[in-house]
Amino acid sequence: MIKKTNVNAAILIIGNEILSGRTQDTNTSTIALWLNSIGVKVQEVRVIPDIEDTIIETVKKLRKSNNYVFTTGGIGPTHDDITAKSISKAFSLNYEIHKEAFKILEAYYKPGEFNEGRQKMVWMPKNAKLILNPTSGAPGFNVENVFCLPGVPSILKSMLGGLKNKIVGGKPIISHTISLRTVESEIAKSLTDVQDKNKDIEIGSYPFFQAGKLGVSIVIRSEDQTRIDSCVSQVLDFINEKKIEVVNR
Amino acid sequence: MIKKTNVNAAILIIGNEILSGRTQDTNTSTIALWLNSIGVKVQEVRVIPDIEDTIIETVKKLRKSNNYVFTTGGIGPTHDDITAKSISKAFSLNYEIHKEAFKILEAYYKPGEFNEGRQKMVWMPKNAKLILNPTSGAPGFNVENVFCLPGVPSILKSMLGGLKNKIVGGKPIISHTISLRTVESEIAKSLTDVQDKNKDIEIGSYPFFQAGKLGVSIVIRSEDQTRIDSCVSQVLDFINEKKIEVVNR
Repeated sequence: MIKKTNVNAAILIIGNEILSGRTQDTNTSTIALWLNSIGVKVQEVRVIPDIEDTIIETVKKLRKSNNYVFTTGGIGPTHDDITAKSISKAFSLNYEIHKEAFKILEAYYKPGEFNEGRQKMVWMPKNAKLILNPTSGAPGFNVENVFCLPGVPSILKSMLGGLKNKIVGGKPIISHTISLRTVESEIAKSLTDVQDKNKDIEIGSYPFFQAGKLGVSIVIRSEDQTRIDSCVSQVLDFINEKKIEVVNR
Repeated sequence: MIKKTNVNAAILIIGNEILSGRTQDTNTSTIALWLNSIGVKVQEVRVIPDIEDTIIETVKKLRKSNNYVFTTGGIGPTHDDITAKSISKAFSLNYEIHKEAFKILEAYYKPGEFNEGRQKMVWMPKNAKLILNPTSGAPGFNVENVFCLPGVPSILKSMLGGLKNKIVGGKPIISHTISLRTVESEIAKSLTDVQDKNKDIEIGSYPFFQAGKLGVSIVIRSEDQTRIDSCVSQVLDFINEKKIEVVNR
């Protein structure tokens, strides 16, 4: 029913700390918003544990059904950081010292500080392309359509800019939000009518609580601004007719 | 390598708003922490769009490989709420008015307010068991090992208590965190040694930034308190030897 944009991606969050509930994932939203802005639609997110076979199997699956796969987590210096080794196996590539990454970290740390633990971070799939890290030195890497980023949100964010030329997106996905002082059931039927008349547009309805009052946000998404504008005016038509207060648009 | 507890679960987040990055999912962490407390380990999380075929296929897959599946989202009154219909199809059950749910909502709303939109929320798979909703009336539901909850975090939270007798867990999963003023590379080798000697225990290492300083949290998880205690003391041994400051334990 919903028309897909041509370029899509999966996000693969690798880490027991997310599955245990200890850590709240925020990388999905960071990556998704950035991808939208360059015309890539996130089709699927998976969170999996630090288990080699699971990582290998999931990466193989996701990279077939998506144009791009972004992994987060598991590229640090400790025993539970097994992403680079797992990706090597997923691509049947040697897991070895990446010379360029070695040089970068050798220069990044003070003499004597580039110890065994840190040296683990330059082990990567053979011939991986580096994703530079302006925050803490240790690069991520990319093999074919799989891009491996760190789990620490601030570091991940700082690395996305460097990816721009490596990702070929479609038209940016535009979204328009209309926030209303109403409840979903009041607008459900009219909104269904608008969706039925505009099957190529993604229309979502999301209740919210704000300052003790209930509201609903209608989110209209498409890569085509004129189609969005048309939907917005169809929504505003029934909103006006029902005399519903518009909080924000 | 890591010993699994006997009872596991998958969480399935249904909603375009998470995939677009517009909304930050917090339900995963809420459900996972609660499940840990009753001895159920989350093995996998997936976020998928509001597409019927995708929901059906994913539910069928996840409920085979997990003891329990918890879905969030898509059970409201609008056109994009298609979880109940999709679950009906996944189980080849009629999608029909649930009499008990109808009575609950008829009593919940003021006369005349139980309109067409709201009535959509009582359409469920035939013979589904209800999950009561103390916050906003509309119940979730359960078919076999699949439990369908709403997407709004505060409502979802309020419904978990009512699930307790429906889920049979193993031993509660206990976790112990030791926070250190150090960097991961300083402890990587010693921590690997502890993990190698305790393959049945899940040991994670997570860098953090706090008050402008770097630190590392070591998280030790198991259902066996004595095994955790033993690992903690092995970790503290090398921490003391290295004269690393313990921030919290």
